[in-house]
Amino acid sequence: MSSHRVVALCGGIGGAKLALGLYRVLPADALTVIVNTGDDFEHLGLRISPDVDTVLYTLAGLADTEVGWGRRHETLTFMQVLATLGGETWFRLGDGDLALHVERTRRLAGGETLSTIIADLARHLEIAAQVVPMSDDVVSTRVGTPQGEIEFQDYFVRQRCAPRVTSLRFAGAGSARPAPGVVAALQGHAPAAIIICPSNPYLSIDPILAVPPLVGGQAIKGPTGKIMTELGVPLTPASIVEHYSGLIDGFVLDARDRGVASAIDLPLKVSDTVMATLDDRERLAQEVLDFAAALRARKPRS
Amino acid sequence: MSSHRVVALCGGIGGAKLALGLYRVLPADALTVIVNTGDDFEHLGLRISPDVDTVLYTLAGLADTEVGWGRRHETLTFMQVLATLGGETWFRLGDGDLALHVERTRRLAGGETLSTIIADLARHLEIAAQVVPMSDDVVSTRVGTPQGEIEFQDYFVRQRCAPRVTSLRFAGAGSARPAPGVVAALQGHAPAAIIICPSNPYLSIDPILAVPPLVGGQAIKGPTGKIMTELGVPLTPASIVEHYSGLIDGFVLDARDRGVASAIDLPLKVSDTVMATLDDRERLAQEVLDFAAALRARKPRS
Repeated sequence: MSSHRVVALCGGIGGAKLALGLYRVLPADALTVIVNTGDDFEHLGLRISPDVDTVLYTLAGLADTEVGWGRRHETLTFMQVLATLGGETWFRLGDGDLALHVERTRRLAGGETLSTIIADLARHLEIAAQVVPMSDDVVSTRVGTPQGEIEFQDYFVRQRCAPRVTSLRFAGAGSARPAPGVVAALQGHAPAAIIICPSNPYLSIDPILAVPPLVGGQAIKGPTGKIMTELGVPLTPASIVEHYSGLIDGFVLDARDRGVASAIDLPLKVSDTVMATLDDRERLAQEVLDFAAALRARKPRS
Repeated sequence: MSSHRVVALCGGIGGAKLALGLYRVLPADALTVIVNTGDDFEHLGLRISPDVDTVLYTLAGLADTEVGWGRRHETLTFMQVLATLGGETWFRLGDGDLALHVERTRRLAGGETLSTIIADLARHLEIAAQVVPMSDDVVSTRVGTPQGEIEFQDYFVRQRCAPRVTSLRFAGAGSARPAPGVVAALQGHAPAAIIICPSNPYLSIDPILAVPPLVGGQAIKGPTGKIMTELGVPLTPASIVEHYSGLIDGFVLDARDRGVASAIDLPLKVSDTVMATLDDRERLAQEVLDFAAALRARKPRS
């Protein structure tokens, strides 16, 4: 028997939009969002979890929906003063956002696990969904470039994706254990659906899949040469399906890509996947859930 | 031969006012301010140096002159959000102020000394005076109360000086070494004057004097019972003179206390010591310097 629980695998901005749609159309406590922590890094002595925080802010209704990350009604006094003190300012931290980083850093230093802290912060933010970092262990996405391997945020924010990507590696993934909430969501009663959110497959979803017990520990190879395509020009949906081959039972294809449907050998749901408004997010979330239910009905019970 | 260097021993708000006056009437680089760090503490995982920061902000012209500490034009988004996350909010940290704490904490963790960091921050804030923490070693003012010993900021800010003080102790002072800038300012050419700023003698000046090589390592005993007087009702100038007995060559007495002058067996300068305006600070600073010069002329050359 399956539960009513829906599990979403999610990165930051794009994924969080669908997670919000799912959160709004599902019963309040039916959603577990497993979030990428491969982007996490230490900056200014603070532990920062960009994707987790984007999901928290989005589900709490606090996100800056214009830029897609950070908080609404944010002030930037900290960054302005930091600049006058000669500090590093390439990673923008709003004053309110900083409260979350300072609290997380303090509590981690005190021995609490990341997932415990995030669960408590989610409670304070009155989020009824389970927001679970993929692992309490440190997993760091490392970007190989012709000049050597660099940290993800160095590549992504400081160097604005300028270096040519030769490899991607999720350092620590091999020995990382999934967070207790991940295990709880996936074991026992099978969830009604596991939804891979429209987050970057290589940068946001692959790190989640790289944590061994979740998908049997297969090595995720760096998509050499693909990352530039990924970040610069429109993706070919067929290559995403190929990337998730063996893992997914169906794929939601954007209506604009209808022409490539024949190249995809998987059940498809064609829909408008651009989530500009809150209505878009709810509509797509409902379509995805209905699609998952239909796929589930088709499969032999396990 | 004495140098033109003037050394000021200083705590926070009151002392910083005179330090600013001295800074403005002296040649730009002639002043060394040795600042109490006994109030320093770790809060939210950050190392905070309240007196040093007040001196930095005051000399840089950035201080909030209404409350006497913190920065002008400050925002409080961090504290507001921290409250929503269930964090500790009893010690108010402005968003801009936080930049200084985060930088200091990061650089201390990287192995730099406090005095090196403060010198660099002072340079970024375009302060020409030397601002020197009394020691690079941790010295912590501990307040004895009937309920046991507590940290200074717990007593001073969180409990708003409510507990009855039974003792004061400067933990770590016995083994602390004065910061290199302290030694440089006091050794070699004798300074033209050493000025004890109008900071709380027991809480702000005694910790500086407790760092051994500076005054020969004498134990500074807690002024049992005095601290409540100190913080609640007007002080008797004679008790301050008595407290600094053997250490000072002269005392600046407020004109309002002229009546007790006969009880003080030391050279006195009677003046208006209330420093409401910037003019007040410059005037008092000049009077203090002139008084010190006169005292020096009277003493046999050493």
